[in-house]
Amino acid sequence: MTAERKGPMIIAVGSGKGGVGKSTLTANLAIALAKKGVKVGLVDADIYGPSQPVIFGTQGQRPDARDNKPIPLESKYGVDHLSMGHLVAPGKALAWRGPMAAGALGQLIEAHWAEDTQVLLIDLPPGTGDVQLTMVQKFKPAGAVLVSTPQDLALIDAARAGQLFDTAGVPVIGLVENMSGYACPHCGETSDPFGSGGVEAAAGRLELPFLGRIPLAMDIRQGSDAGEPPAAGDGAHAGAFHAIAEKLATWISERS
Amino acid sequence: MTAERKGPMIIAVGSGKGGVGKSTLTANLAIALAKKGVKVGLVDADIYGPSQPVIFGTQGQRPDARDNKPIPLESKYGVDHLSMGHLVAPGKALAWRGPMAAGALGQLIEAHWAEDTQVLLIDLPPGTGDVQLTMVQKFKPAGAVLVSTPQDLALIDAARAGQLFDTAGVPVIGLVENMSGYACPHCGETSDPFGSGGVEAAAGRLELPFLGRIPLAMDIRQGSDAGEPPAAGDGAHAGAFHAIAEKLATWISERS
Repeated sequence: MTAERKGPMIIAVGSGKGGVGKSTLTANLAIALAKKGVKVGLVDADIYGPSQPVIFGTQGQRPDARDNKPIPLESKYGVDHLSMGHLVAPGKALAWRGPMAAGALGQLIEAHWAEDTQVLLIDLPPGTGDVQLTMVQKFKPAGAVLVSTPQDLALIDAARAGQLFDTAGVPVIGLVENMSGYACPHCGETSDPFGSGGVEAAAGRLELPFLGRIPLAMDIRQGSDAGEPPAAGDGAHAGAFHAIAEKLATWISERS
Repeated sequence: MTAERKGPMIIAVGSGKGGVGKSTLTANLAIALAKKGVKVGLVDADIYGPSQPVIFGTQGQRPDARDNKPIPLESKYGVDHLSMGHLVAPGKALAWRGPMAAGALGQLIEAHWAEDTQVLLIDLPPGTGDVQLTMVQKFKPAGAVLVSTPQDLALIDAARAGQLFDTAGVPVIGLVENMSGYACPHCGETSDPFGSGGVEAAAGRLELPFLGRIPLAMDIRQGSDAGEPPAAGDGAHAGAFHAIAEKLATWISERS
């Protein structure tokens, strides 16, 4: 039976380093794809630091289960999602060794996603540990998006993550530069606390597509903290996410 | 024999979320403590994203070994240090499952540290996985410093990490707020891309000491990328690190 099931296309969103905005990007890409009519599910596989319940405003909700498999939560943005953060009390450490974390990933991916789900975006934990290895080995994604800030230290880690996908034969769809340029709320001038342009240059060196850049902006951060992702609205920064989603949608349609 | 050995006091520097500046803080605290005359060693246990070779300008160096144990590298800042980044080629993914990562931690901690080493600072990977569990269970630290940005999403993860130490009976020495306030290089006005004050408030709620704040500043990032940590000099941001190191030194001396 399993072999006959045509499941959704799995796309992983990864980063070498944490704190580069991977979860925010994943949520906003999912919402932007949904707005384009793609039926998207989102798995928050960042087992040790699940952010999606906060970003989608669904923290404290508990998914129902059927046949021992969880039923993903709906959101007002048209993106069904499921996170370990929904299964554990806030502030509780998921002090799990690797095999348990990797097992949890399987539960989330093999949940009761709607039958018409076309794409499952996976918000991976940072780094190249158990969850990522299980992801590429057991649930081989069709492709991966890599996120980095332009800082050298982050780029080094992003290259490591890229190499993990490469070794596993998972194509890297492209790189996204996050926290690129910050407009001073006082004078309006832009500066680059984390540098600028480094990710596009790295994409060139690694011969990978560059998908675009997202600025460092207070309203993106506040939207993420408040369960109001910018891609759902039409504010100043929605466009940056929609432009990247457009490239992703093209990649997906060419392979569907 | 082992029981008689009085090893250095182990202090872990952890964060729930990655990318909050944990490695930069650890390096600068080590340098500031060394300037105060404390003999400090630094272990970069961030197995999947080792940053210390870049911060100390020792990338590409290979530690010697004696009796199958590595000999820590010296640095011009008076801090011996050892990182998995010294043992693996740059850009190579450390695609290790948990038990292997935890084993690597043991190799770094049980290396040939100078006999007069008083304190071993451990730059932990973000989160609450295998390396952290091995750290608290096998190499029980005397205390832990937690770093977070003021963003809600980061604070939630910091509380999780705090809970891990608490459960293991490792006292949390205090919380540090990083990326707190950014001075525009054009107009000089300060704004808060990641919010402000959240970590001090969280420390209050969790009844933990607040150790201080480090601003988001281009010269801290550039110094970290260029192997010139600010605490080693007397630039504008050295003082913030030295003030936190002073509190840490007091904590250490009260327990030595």
